[in-house]
Amino acid sequence: MSLRPTLDFLLYDWLDAESLSGRERFADHSRETFDAVLDTCERIAREKYAPSNRIVDTQEPHFDGEKVILPQATHDAHKAFVESGMLSAAQDYDIGGMQLPYTLSAAANSFFAMASVSIGSNMLTSGNANLLMVHGTEMQKEVFAKNEFAGRWSGTMCLSEPQAGSSLSDVATRAVPDGPDFQDDPLGPRFRLTGNKMWISAGDHELTENIVHIVLAKIPDENGKLIPGTRGISLFIVPKKMVGTDGQLTGERNDVALAGLNHKLGWRGTTNTLLNFGEGKFPVGGKAGAVGYLVGQPGKGLHCMFHMMNEARIGVGTAATMLGMAGYFASLDYAKNRPQGRPAGPAGKDAAKPQVRIIEHADVRRMLLAQKAYCEGALALELYCARLVDEQKTGDAQAADDARLLLEVLTPIAKSWPSEWCLEANSLAIQIHGGYGYTRDFPVEQYWRDNRLNMIHEGTHGIQAADLLGRKVLMEDGRGLQLLVGRVGQTIARAAAVPALAAHAKALGEALERVGSATRAAWATGNPQEALANAVPYMQAFGHVVLAWIWLDVAQHALARDGAKALPATVGRLGAADFFFHYELPKIGAWLQVVERRDPTCAALPEEAF
Amino acid sequence: MSLRPTLDFLLYDWLDAESLSGRERFADHSRETFDAVLDTCERIAREKYAPSNRIVDTQEPHFDGEKVILPQATHDAHKAFVESGMLSAAQDYDIGGMQLPYTLSAAANSFFAMASVSIGSNMLTSGNANLLMVHGTEMQKEVFAKNEFAGRWSGTMCLSEPQAGSSLSDVATRAVPDGPDFQDDPLGPRFRLTGNKMWISAGDHELTENIVHIVLAKIPDENGKLIPGTRGISLFIVPKKMVGTDGQLTGERNDVALAGLNHKLGWRGTTNTLLNFGEGKFPVGGKAGAVGYLVGQPGKGLHCMFHMMNEARIGVGTAATMLGMAGYFASLDYAKNRPQGRPAGPAGKDAAKPQVRIIEHADVRRMLLAQKAYCEGALALELYCARLVDEQKTGDAQAADDARLLLEVLTPIAKSWPSEWCLEANSLAIQIHGGYGYTRDFPVEQYWRDNRLNMIHEGTHGIQAADLLGRKVLMEDGRGLQLLVGRVGQTIARAAAVPALAAHAKALGEALERVGSATRAAWATGNPQEALANAVPYMQAFGHVVLAWIWLDVAQHALARDGAKALPATVGRLGAADFFFHYELPKIGAWLQVVERRDPTCAALPEEAF
Repeated sequence: MSLRPTLDFLLYDWLDAESLSGRERFADHSRETFDAVLDTCERIAREKYAPSNRIVDTQEPHFDGEKVILPQATHDAHKAFVESGMLSAAQDYDIGGMQLPYTLSAAANSFFAMASVSIGSNMLTSGNANLLMVHGTEMQKEVFAKNEFAGRWSGTMCLSEPQAGSSLSDVATRAVPDGPDFQDDPLGPRFRLTGNKMWISAGDHELTENIVHIVLAKIPDENGKLIPGTRGISLFIVPKKMVGTDGQLTGERNDVALAGLNHKLGWRGTTNTLLNFGEGKFPVGGKAGAVGYLVGQPGKGLHCMFHMMNEARIGVGTAATMLGMAGYFASLDYAKNRPQGRPAGPAGKDAAKPQVRIIEHADVRRMLLAQKAYCEGALALELYCARLVDEQKTGDAQAADDARLLLEVLTPIAKSWPSEWCLEANSLAIQIHGGYGYTRDFPVEQYWRDNRLNMIHEGTHGIQAADLLGRKVLMEDGRGLQLLVGRVGQTIARAAAVPALAAHAKALGEALERVGSATRAAWATGNPQEALANAVPYMQAFGHVVLAWIWLDVAQHALARDGAKALPATVGRLGAADFFFHYELPKIGAWLQVVERRDPTCAALPEEAF
Repeated sequence: MSLRPTLDFLLYDWLDAESLSGRERFADHSRETFDAVLDTCERIAREKYAPSNRIVDTQEPHFDGEKVILPQATHDAHKAFVESGMLSAAQDYDIGGMQLPYTLSAAANSFFAMASVSIGSNMLTSGNANLLMVHGTEMQKEVFAKNEFAGRWSGTMCLSEPQAGSSLSDVATRAVPDGPDFQDDPLGPRFRLTGNKMWISAGDHELTENIVHIVLAKIPDENGKLIPGTRGISLFIVPKKMVGTDGQLTGERNDVALAGLNHKLGWRGTTNTLLNFGEGKFPVGGKAGAVGYLVGQPGKGLHCMFHMMNEARIGVGTAATMLGMAGYFASLDYAKNRPQGRPAGPAGKDAAKPQVRIIEHADVRRMLLAQKAYCEGALALELYCARLVDEQKTGDAQAADDARLLLEVLTPIAKSWPSEWCLEANSLAIQIHGGYGYTRDFPVEQYWRDNRLNMIHEGTHGIQAADLLGRKVLMEDGRGLQLLVGRVGQTIARAAAVPALAAHAKALGEALERVGSATRAAWATGNPQEALANAVPYMQAFGHVVLAWIWLDVAQHALARDGAKALPATVGRLGAADFFFHYELPKIGAWLQVVERRDPTCAALPEEAF
């Protein structure tokens, strides 16, 4: 089994990714160069990632008092990834990048997520460096970003604090000017930071020579007070080890100390840390306080940070998707080879006949087809969003603006939907394995554990839902939602003309209508407390409608390409689309019902009644 | 937080358990003796089970080459449980039991499942001994069952084999008569067994002096062939160590060897083993072959085994329920104490105000109320089923027969529904904890891992669904289903007269109607392959209707008892019922749609299209 045919179909037949090479930025690319990138990543993932996925789960990171120890396999995988050039794949040629479209980069990275989601934390490093390329000074780009793209240093994002996880308004890390000449440091205005940062992935390790932390902190006002809310947040570069303007280590440690490793349910290949900034363990120049260099304007830290949010959330969605896909492949393989039981009814009565393989049982097929519908559908959505990122960056003005706005609306779905449904896929993969799936002798239990993180990090399910219903469908007078409705409408119009898809097209039209009216009903009283009380069911329904649209569009393209040949892959895609429309889309009724009536049951229940 | 008020309400106010003391078998009992049992079990669970739940997870059983090592905490918990007398609670006074109703026994055991589900495997020991009390000879009861009830020995159930998990027809363990005098052994007809048994919980350990395996095996015919199918299966007692008729160990090992421990995702306090019977490692009397004593008639093994299935499946359902409840309590406690974020809308705009506790967020309340609705509803269902067991055993002829038949129909739901929805509750408990829930510093991730087993063991979800739609709703001309419809109808009639419940009563009536018509539609062509292709969605819908009925009945009783006082507990029960009717019951539409049209999407998809 290989992911490649599915990727190829989605990229080239469905999204026409090859046409991106017609754009100036990607003019040196072609199907051949795209395929070469996919080939390389597929090979590295197969050779360096997949064989170590269980090792990184069982050999959890540990701290020996001096250093964080990771398995050798992680070092090897990191080295191979760096050598692939993928860290800077999207960057300009003149800084050593390959000007690869994001669509291709997302597709290529999916191999790694499927082989071993937690072995690398490369998304953080490139996200960190990408942010500096947009908001950093020339010197900051030169010293920090370039060393990250080269894989010499790695990057983190330090947002959460123990008392402020989802609530960034409450960040309490302080940054005060470091001496009277603080403005004159060539690396950027120099501050001293004190505070604690929680849930920092890849916060400490020895994979790279240095670690570049990007840290949210607040600069106190003249009275020494922190400004409440997110307005007060600024952004700083805080290296683990001090560096010079030549990009070399000075030999001095910065005052950033590992306070503890988090011991997680899964995703154990990546360290997750609590970091203390400025506690005085590693004084710089004899003085406590972590040295940090301001990035961008004071008070604009969150704005800078959000610049990378869309891509990070597509990254999380893709990780969830590929964990689902890994479970699908494992359970499909198992189902094709494991004999157990006999068919229902008279055909199965003769116990003298040999057992059949479990893929012959209807219920096992149902669990396989559900996984296929969830995971391949989610992959299509992620690649569609990645394609919008390219459109936003390289399309003409109108197309770019449309892409931006569509991405705003689709990102909460791209992040949340696979986190929920590809986790369910992993549970079905366990179920197909029976008792064996519950043991650590098979990979599926790890996929399920690893995947449980995705509904939590980069904004929980609840945060995504409030973002969708509270902001995204309203913004710019609802134009983002209207754009989406327009795209879905185009798919419906095309599919309505195809006999095999006409009923689905009709069902999707009705579902879309209902989401629209539920959106209006939620906001009918204009009261955010009432509207948002059922934001998660709203997002679940919205997500199912988006996925139904994706499947209808994929099915229509597959049929159009196939002609009347009925290739197995086309039959599979039509089957998955049928599954989604028969088994999944009807679920939206239950979710939207509570949204439509702004059901107060949960919000109104007094605390003592729980 | 305590489980006790919920248990007390369900037992005494809802199920009128006290009235059981009016029956001859339970005549010495009263509310006082019932409460004393509950008190004792609650205390032992709190003192000996709960504190060790993480220990048994991290100190997984291991084999040192001679013995299986378990943590000391497991030994202590086992000792305390044995001393409580709960192993033989249901038995006659004259063999040392307390003639406790099963309803009370189920309620009391729920404390242990909530405190540490995997630390004990006592259900297996009492189930094993109960089976012998029904099907064993006087000597077998005396030697084996009594020592199990006393906690001196423990018991297992050896059904599955590596090549035959769900498919018992394919059991290949052989039992041949042990010498010409095999019929004359006072412990029962003596056979020699050879074969492998997989997934044997508590299959090897040092908690007790001996282990009594109950083993399914086939006696070859005159040509040495095993009879295909389940007809050929017989039941044997195979002790780990040989015993005399005096119930003392002879000092000789039986030929049962540990072939391996299974390393599981969760439920790690209980060893799970692969056992080799008769491989010659421990020859008895110089001869290979595990000595086994026939129980009951040859070829009737499965029949004997099914005797204990209902109780075992209620036990699994209760375990799933109590894991859900443990997560609910943990996340409710966390939500009441963790400050994070501010309310939606203008009220939350002032970041200078302190953060609120997360229970004040509507979405957190939704996740709490969902858990309450799932877990308290499931507990009510399990106790209702336990009450039917008592009715079957001590009711008058008609009531006993009705109870038997209702149990047949409800058991697949009692087993499957909590396995699915209280697992979902555990996922919500993680979600409420955010990042902390994903760490091993909080208990919720373990509950979720532990609970994942329950959809697999004692018959998978798929097996339960095929049993429900393929057998239970059809048996005795559908009289079981009709009985259930009658009970539900009575609840609807009572609730329809209560203004706060009238809408729910109407909704339940419609849902019940729809399940009935879906059942007929599934079987409209009389083709089991078509009817059963969507057995799992059918069971999901059936389960939701059963739970809606349970909640409506509970709510009606709560209101009737409360009068107009509006106690917090009553408000909570009504809230949970409202939640179930608004958020959950509407889901049945999507499930039943595919059942009604015998949707062939999954079954018909060719293998190469996956």
